[in-house]
Amino acid sequence: MLTPMNGVDRQKLFDTIDAITADKTIARFKFRLRNKWVDGGENRSRVDDYDGANQTFRREAPFELVNDEPPVLLGTDRGPNPVEYVLHALAGCLTTSLVYHAAAKGIEVKGVTTRFEGDLDLRGFLGIDSNVRRGYQGIRVVFDIDADMDEAGKRELIKTAQKYSPVYDIVTNGVPVACVLDARQAQAA
Amino acid sequence: MLTPMNGVDRQKLFDTIDAITADKTIARFKFRLRNKWVDGGENRSRVDDYDGANQTFRREAPFELVNDEPPVLLGTDRGPNPVEYVLHALAGCLTTSLVYHAAAKGIEVKGVTTRFEGDLDLRGFLGIDSNVRRGYQGIRVVFDIDADMDEAGKRELIKTAQKYSPVYDIVTNGVPVACVLDARQAQAA
Repeated sequence: MLTPMNGVDRQKLFDTIDAITADKTIARFKFRLRNKWVDGGENRSRVDDYDGANQTFRREAPFELVNDEPPVLLGTDRGPNPVEYVLHALAGCLTTSLVYHAAAKGIEVKGVTTRFEGDLDLRGFLGIDSNVRRGYQGIRVVFDIDADMDEAGKRELIKTAQKYSPVYDIVTNGVPVACVLDARQAQAA
Repeated sequence: MLTPMNGVDRQKLFDTIDAITADKTIARFKFRLRNKWVDGGENRSRVDDYDGANQTFRREAPFELVNDEPPVLLGTDRGPNPVEYVLHALAGCLTTSLVYHAAAKGIEVKGVTTRFEGDLDLRGFLGIDSNVRRGYQGIRVVFDIDADMDEAGKRELIKTAQKYSPVYDIVTNGVPVACVLDARQAQAA
């Protein structure tokens, strides 16, 4: 029986790896949400159920997330804006990947703090210059890691996080996104 | 003086476009946040200031966002997980892009609801099969739009959202992400 490390139940982690190695269908997850426009730059998402390990899981209570834009971007600042949420997703995933993979290797981590910054040129979104991309031109991440190891060891932890993080893969490599109009609505129109 | 539409101050929107056309430095934004690991799959981001229009803006109160993982992914479910936040960011940005660009064209939108789903194979994150990608293999989006227009018009609104949304660009095309160890920490090690 392995002891937990970095708050990660390592026994359950290795049991999961064994189970997936025996039956890869256990590894298939589907995450989902519904979003509803409120007004202007404000909209809200409801995050509840997801599929994984051949079953559907539902939260005890759904999470509600608020997107808005600050006044300079014509919003009412009731929540972070979507490009800030991208940084949050990336921060969370890199940190969790670092901590989980360290735990799997038996490396104790005492603290991780990160700073994220992304450059965005509004001419893209506004359609002022079609040569300017709409999204971030680049994102910079600075890690501060508290662990009993030298600089090279910490850099290795960062590399491992980059190697295994799902959101780092999504943000750096891109994912196909298919957008359609609701079929019932399309029929009704 | 233009009237607002879809909750968007169109006069301010066109004034912004004019200002940026005259001075492109106004269009340069930097969004940022700090994240701190709590334990296991839980970590928290603090979203506060950002740069844009040649100045730094600070929120009246910072936003705090919570990442966690559900129990099946060895977490304590105190918040959505990072890949769910990716869907939230994408949902918010596509919706805001749709609504703002409709407003700019004088198209009234009464409602937008969307459903998002992404497929993720955990073998990537766990390093069980290096041929399986870590991030989403694909994301599906279904739009339900309430507006006085036919199906073709609604499909056009969706295409416009895809064309101008920063997060859609980030998620479909990818962005360079540079990760470094804090320089002071590197010196101290």
